[in-house]
Amino acid sequence: MKLATIRDGSRDGQLAVVSRDLKRAHMADAIAPTLQAALDDWAFIAPQLDSLYAQLNHGEARRAFDFAPEDCMAPLPRASQWALGSAYLRHVELLRGAGNGDLPAFLRDEPLLCQGAGDAFLGPHDDILLAHEEWGIDFGAGLAAIVDDVPMGATPDEAHGRIRLLMLANTVALRKLAQAELAKGYGFLQSAPATACSPVAVTPDELGDAWRGGKVHLPLRATWNGHLVGQPNAGVDMDFNFPQLIAHLCKSRKVSAGSIVGAGTVSNRDNKKAKTPAGHACIAEQRSLETIAGGAPGTPFMRFGDTIRIEMLDEAGKPVFGAIEQAVRQA
Amino acid sequence: MKLATIRDGSRDGQLAVVSRDLKRAHMADAIAPTLQAALDDWAFIAPQLDSLYAQLNHGEARRAFDFAPEDCMAPLPRASQWALGSAYLRHVELLRGAGNGDLPAFLRDEPLLCQGAGDAFLGPHDDILLAHEEWGIDFGAGLAAIVDDVPMGATPDEAHGRIRLLMLANTVALRKLAQAELAKGYGFLQSAPATACSPVAVTPDELGDAWRGGKVHLPLRATWNGHLVGQPNAGVDMDFNFPQLIAHLCKSRKVSAGSIVGAGTVSNRDNKKAKTPAGHACIAEQRSLETIAGGAPGTPFMRFGDTIRIEMLDEAGKPVFGAIEQAVRQA
Repeated sequence: MKLATIRDGSRDGQLAVVSRDLKRAHMADAIAPTLQAALDDWAFIAPQLDSLYAQLNHGEARRAFDFAPEDCMAPLPRASQWALGSAYLRHVELLRGAGNGDLPAFLRDEPLLCQGAGDAFLGPHDDILLAHEEWGIDFGAGLAAIVDDVPMGATPDEAHGRIRLLMLANTVALRKLAQAELAKGYGFLQSAPATACSPVAVTPDELGDAWRGGKVHLPLRATWNGHLVGQPNAGVDMDFNFPQLIAHLCKSRKVSAGSIVGAGTVSNRDNKKAKTPAGHACIAEQRSLETIAGGAPGTPFMRFGDTIRIEMLDEAGKPVFGAIEQAVRQA
Repeated sequence: MKLATIRDGSRDGQLAVVSRDLKRAHMADAIAPTLQAALDDWAFIAPQLDSLYAQLNHGEARRAFDFAPEDCMAPLPRASQWALGSAYLRHVELLRGAGNGDLPAFLRDEPLLCQGAGDAFLGPHDDILLAHEEWGIDFGAGLAAIVDDVPMGATPDEAHGRIRLLMLANTVALRKLAQAELAKGYGFLQSAPATACSPVAVTPDELGDAWRGGKVHLPLRATWNGHLVGQPNAGVDMDFNFPQLIAHLCKSRKVSAGSIVGAGTVSNRDNKKAKTPAGHACIAEQRSLETIAGGAPGTPFMRFGDTIRIEMLDEAGKPVFGAIEQAVRQA
């Protein structure tokens, strides 16, 4: 099923079920007021939501309305955990300026995740408000999983079965603040402003065969100022799958329902046989390649007024999650 | 006023008001069901809680009951942000093995904070459940602030006025996992298991003159296996105060109500004139001093069965927050 959170002036919004074709929606208030409430008691709530979803898809829901992504908050506007992985090592390589794939063992041997702030996810159409262009504003197109409770020490197989929802995320990064923060060792803080999410989060079964091996095997499209700049396949070159990321996260502590685990910016290695180039799901990779090739980056970071659109189409060309469509504005 | 969250089987517990002497309590269900609900609308809710607090202190509350810290969850059992600062540079120096105070400029010039997971704070009497002693289990006694909404770019002065509650925190750390994580640059993940909180969180006015300059000027007592091992003053050698930590956190993004900002393990520099030695609010500092003096640490980390008690007394010797009292158990 597909779930969205409709803006209603409250901090958590109102849970709604959205039809498979993203055209119609129905408030879920009779079942669960918010997505967190649904996740808090998923085994009991999910079947009821699924039943409403079936009615909606069959045109039998009583109070259906036209779905408007611009009325959406993030599916989970605030989450008690937001752990962002770096599952695509090609992205890590390029951001470290290592175009030759030369990475330290600690990056290759086990997943790398960084804790973030879950208190203010942006809706799919919310502006990216920032004070300074000079911070090096970059988008970062990726996928994120919303999980149920996961016990401490769970294996990847156990973690796999605790993935409840998947969604798209735009993990905006301030690249010119990031290097100094990385050098301190304490992860990203000021270089990690608010992340935006797709209009809907979907249960893994919605992806059909595209969800296999703990990965989403579909291209993720990033369109910057109207130009398609990336369409890497999220199931290709994902060096650690979602179950591995989650198992890594819960080695020494349990993970609670409603935690969000991101897989990081999707990135594919060059494939000369591919019909279309994968391109880049962020600007920093392009700049890194330019630097490797010519000694300096040519592509600028985002400017105030720039737009970014992130979406994923299924094999029939239909949008799965709806699109993230944001503009950068000066705060 | 003093607030606690009573365990009721739900994930967020039930909000209660606790008397100043920590002897009596009263459910706040008629005002706000949970502490997060109170924080979501603090300007409206806080005066009502304060009124109940006054009645309780005067013995006039109608359904008061004896306060039992063992029935408490953390005041905010899950928080959408948990940012842990390193405000006491003496602690950072010692953990880096730099007993001479030789720190890189980036540590001295601005606050250092690391994002953590807010999905599962422990109650004051909850066991510290871990799989392996070999991970180097350490306690870390400190203070944390619960804030209201703080706008992006707020100054320390503005941030000061957004601090709603203060509480004690035991930021348990797995020291033998921490160094490797620090070297990766992405902050603490597996080395940061669940943090425990004091039975009550208190509004800053409860501290009277002890709350000044954005610091809590009282000793924090750490008692390990029945022996007092530390009583550093939280207002001494705090190199960055709470308002500075919060302002640093919201440079490039807003911070939402219910975010928790920790100040890190309290640590005082040696003071030969002090009547009593400050000692250490964690084990790692002691081990570092032993290593500097003799080449190797002598004090072991915590073992299964060990206990840790953390509390803060006011100038009259009365407990302010109640005590964190935990035992380490094998998961």
